[in-house]
Amino acid sequence: MKNIQLDDAGRLRHFLTVEGLPRELLERILDTAESFSGVIEKSVKKVPLLRGRTIINLFFEPSTRTRTTFELAAKRLSADVLNINVATSATTKGESLLDMLRNLQAMQCDMFVVRHGDSGAAHFIAQHVAPHVGVVNAGDGRHAHPTQAMLDMYTIRRHKGDFEPLRIAIVGDILHSRVARSQIHALNTLGAGEVRVVAPRTLLPRDVGSLGAHVYHDIRQGLRDVDVVITLRLQKERMQGALLPSEHEYYQLYGISQERLALARPDAIVMHPGPINRGVEIESAVADGPQSVILNQVTNGIAVRMAVMSMCLEGRGTAAEELT
Amino acid sequence: MKNIQLDDAGRLRHFLTVEGLPRELLERILDTAESFSGVIEKSVKKVPLLRGRTIINLFFEPSTRTRTTFELAAKRLSADVLNINVATSATTKGESLLDMLRNLQAMQCDMFVVRHGDSGAAHFIAQHVAPHVGVVNAGDGRHAHPTQAMLDMYTIRRHKGDFEPLRIAIVGDILHSRVARSQIHALNTLGAGEVRVVAPRTLLPRDVGSLGAHVYHDIRQGLRDVDVVITLRLQKERMQGALLPSEHEYYQLYGISQERLALARPDAIVMHPGPINRGVEIESAVADGPQSVILNQVTNGIAVRMAVMSMCLEGRGTAAEELT
Amino acid sequence: MKNIQLDDAGRLRHFLTVEGLPRELLERILDTAESFSGVIEKSVKKVPLLRGRTIINLFFEPSTRTRTTFELAAKRLSADVLNINVATSATTKGESLLDMLRNLQAMQCDMFVVRHGDSGAAHFIAQHVAPHVGVVNAGDGRHAHPTQAMLDMYTIRRHKGDFEPLRIAIVGDILHSRVARSQIHALNTLGAGEVRVVAPRTLLPRDVGSLGAHVYHDIRQGLRDVDVVITLRLQKERMQGALLPSEHEYYQLYGISQERLALARPDAIVMHPGPINRGVEIESAVADGPQSVILNQVTNGIAVRMAVMSMCLEGRGTAAEELT
Repeated sequence: MKNIQLDDAGRLRHFLTVEGLPRELLERILDTAESFSGVIEKSVKKVPLLRGRTIINLFFEPSTRTRTTFELAAKRLSADVLNINVATSATTKGESLLDMLRNLQAMQCDMFVVRHGDSGAAHFIAQHVAPHVGVVNAGDGRHAHPTQAMLDMYTIRRHKGDFEPLRIAIVGDILHSRVARSQIHALNTLGAGEVRVVAPRTLLPRDVGSLGAHVYHDIRQGLRDVDVVITLRLQKERMQGALLPSEHEYYQLYGISQERLALARPDAIVMHPGPINRGVEIESAVADGPQSVILNQVTNGIAVRMAVMSMCLEGRGTAAEELT
Repeated sequence: MKNIQLDDAGRLRHFLTVEGLPRELLERILDTAESFSGVIEKSVKKVPLLRGRTIINLFFEPSTRTRTTFELAAKRLSADVLNINVATSATTKGESLLDMLRNLQAMQCDMFVVRHGDSGAAHFIAQHVAPHVGVVNAGDGRHAHPTQAMLDMYTIRRHKGDFEPLRIAIVGDILHSRVARSQIHALNTLGAGEVRVVAPRTLLPRDVGSLGAHVYHDIRQGLRDVDVVITLRLQKERMQGALLPSEHEYYQLYGISQERLALARPDAIVMHPGPINRGVEIESAVADGPQSVILNQVTNGIAVRMAVMSMCLEGRGTAAEELT
Repeated sequence: MKNIQLDDAGRLRHFLTVEGLPRELLERILDTAESFSGVIEKSVKKVPLLRGRTIINLFFEPSTRTRTTFELAAKRLSADVLNINVATSATTKGESLLDMLRNLQAMQCDMFVVRHGDSGAAHFIAQHVAPHVGVVNAGDGRHAHPTQAMLDMYTIRRHKGDFEPLRIAIVGDILHSRVARSQIHALNTLGAGEVRVVAPRTLLPRDVGSLGAHVYHDIRQGLRDVDVVITLRLQKERMQGALLPSEHEYYQLYGISQERLALARPDAIVMHPGPINRGVEIESAVADGPQSVILNQVTNGIAVRMAVMSMCLEGRGTAAEELT
């Protein structure tokens, strides 16, 4: 099956999932992000790469945080950005999703950044857009959140260099995390030495064996000698589903404390996709401590999103060329 | 009575309705839109014509779709755009409409794009703004939606050339349509050969005789030998008012099917202002078929709005000149 | 105690309150605003001073009017602007205020324009942001609304020149006004000859004696021979708290009518922060009359906000310099 994300020349056309993307492409994303990091750090933070391009943030579920990072990234590439909150707008007139997409692309929009509650929504949209339109997945159901995964990869590479000698532990709610699956795929593709998932049985997917990670239920064993600790956000609403006893008990069993972090390598870094629940997934002393790179992840997220957006639109034909 | 839309030199100052505008002005709008169509089709879609100008989308009723098209058009002219949803904002402090307008124009805004539920609202606003401010009607009550009418004219001209030999049928809810009145005026002004309206008696205005269109109640007679079929959107809320029996029955009587379209000329084009109700006003096979220009209308809408906005602001004095 | 608003070289780093700012700094704000007034009045209203900078409107309570003025000012300085309505966004995920701020500044945002219902909120935020981030107070509780105060000073200076010979009366709800305190401070710092407050006892703060203003309860005595009349907005919700008998009675006692205005100097100007309640604080004949400068205040507000924003960011190090 052809990978819808790539064109015949192997260029990125959509960014929906890290699954199935070759190592060299992931590395090109990281290298491109590296070049934008310098831009972000200058006081004039803009590059004219996407001047005249229009990017639509098409959000079917609200996420101010995610929308903000994509909007900033797009503006720093000099694109025009429109935010469309679908829940409160077009659907009220009973228009179908596909008709809405066809309309927006007829307005010569160049990219949809899609956030949706259903797994596969971004993929469905990418299958139906016109050739001039790129689609970036900003989180779909439990499935994938690939720019988050790539900013994590970028953060690891910036702090640790080569992936091959690294041991990485992903701790927490693997089952419901859009991020964890993308991370495991990306780490394996980039050749990470050892990927571990650390979680109670109730928060692991059934197919965990096929994900390409070693499973630990005991946090102390899972953290031992790792170079990178990735904590996941605990969705509090899961606790009502009896998957978790209580926040307090979760912290007792899986929270990252200074004492537990001491089991990892002394130069280990600690990551979290945010927003953090202090005292639940992570102790404040760790979140704000010297090994935490949580805020660096946020900074890196802008550069990685700039990379993905500019790569998806690079060398793309315009709408006019298609119509004729 | 002086036409508030034109200055003494005959230049467009506001765009409120196509009624009363001379043929050469409508043609200048179409010609200007033509020049912008080339811009839109380039990959760098911006022109600096309105750089430094501020355009306010002043929406008294929500319409994501219409707001999006004006916002895109303004940004492609390099203007700054502010969206103000009046329903949820200023009026909560009890400020009068005129005080709100005076404030916004004191902030040196150059244009109000007005959407309002009451007929004549845009006209009222245009009468009260300062001389440096242009007003564009983005739909007021049942009255007018002139940029929609002009994008329809532009679409017809692009596909059919000269208006004079053309027969055009407008099908559907003429009574409640903001678009139909504007279309009939524009078509007559531009010299269209024959304008028909096709609708049940309950969906025709009482003054239909004075609109300048031939009335048909039978869809098969109405479509015969026409060059252009314009379907109107059916407002579903009308059906509760007993003006319409049901969607199904409406489709039986007035829906555009492939079979009925065969009564028109073989090269007839099919238009719809969107969003379409598939299977109510129009069959999917027609909406997505080779004679449909529905998505072209959307594309053309950007160029036409760019034309109207830039013409209204062309050569206008600044606020400072007025104040001194 | 060090003034958090100034750096060691006496430059403005945050603009939280006029209290404690030296006269020469207030004058520099007015002079800078003067230079931007020329820009605003040109038809191309933009200067590239803040190109590549990102300004976040961080609104914890909605105010379309205030948000609009800051957004326009930022765009005329060529900054990118993001609006974040905190009430409806981040807090829904339970993130703390400080974590939200840390995230936004990690995205390399340069300035927060803060609107908050609690006194001192902007000051709290300014104490916790990274060194590269400036904070501007857009109104916090009853405490301060310093850009409003400065646009009032600017308006007075533009119409009256030197502050020293002037008598200024501030009329209305001093107790609940975020603006009045800032105004009194600014007027005294700028050397105004005489500052009066005119209000019923129930609408004066207990510490009114220490504010630096003469207190009048009688409107006729308070207005006699003044050069400037500043009316405050009456918050209608106060009347439910029994602090005020009725709108009608308030107007009888403190409303600015033409007849009362005749007690002031013949060239006195009349100001109001808006939105005005016609027939409550002020008669329409006065609000729209030749002595009213109410709309000039609105225009001046853009220039003053441009001045404050550009001064706060002038010569500031970038985030990157801090991180290394």
